[in-house]
Amino acid sequence: MPVLARQEDPPEADGCCTSLVSELLSASQAADLAHLMKALADPTRLRLVSLVAAHQNGQACVCELTDPIGLTQPTISHHLKVLVDAGILTRTQRGKWAYYAIAPARLNALAAVLTVSR
Amino acid sequence: MPVLARQEDPPEADGCCTSLVSELLSASQAADLAHLMKALADPTRLRLVSLVAAHQNGQACVCELTDPIGLTQPTISHHLKVLVDAGILTRTQRGKWAYYAIAPARLNALAAVLTVSR
Repeated sequence: MPVLARQEDPPEADGCCTSLVSELLSASQAADLAHLMKALADPTRLRLVSLVAAHQNGQACVCELTDPIGLTQPTISHHLKVLVDAGILTRTQRGKWAYYAIAPARLNALAAVLTVSR
Repeated sequence: MPVLARQEDPPEADGCCTSLVSELLSASQAADLAHLMKALADPTRLRLVSLVAAHQNGQACVCELTDPIGLTQPTISHHLKVLVDAGILTRTQRGKWAYYAIAPARLNALAAVLTVSR
């Protein structure tokens, strides 16, 4: 079983995720989880997620993200692609611009995997 | 304010952490969080955390971790050091062996940072 449900997985898969601390991760589960965490474990990408979430309705045009981060648009677009590929952001094309939004289920599933019940 | 409280921070700091999606991360908060996430974002280290947590009382001797992971003890010790330095595991020396335990507050603080309220 994958350690984290993808956004395109059925909704009932949401609560199913293996916790890091409640059972032993298999090598392939650990590889999947490391891949997702690496997508987030970058200062620019963390700021992009935070910036998208802070926008009205939790979505932002790529044109609104370049200035606050202070990097070129191709660099920003590369980081956004990593986040979309990891399922952390979604991307919608509207006319000339791409709009990005948070995928809450994916972030919450990752949070659930890391949570240790006391 | 640091985005995540360290284990040695006072307990009241536990619930204080900036959420990734509720306010804009500063560059230094993003750098701190990326550093912590990178410490975890490795398949061997994720399996080590999972293996330590699965042990009785949530702690394990380094001598019990080498065989299940299938790497040499120096390699395992390097990965354990990264996890201890990041505050994810604690290390206690008892006679000849080092014992490792999960630091639940640190993992829970990271989970809280990633949680998106719906």
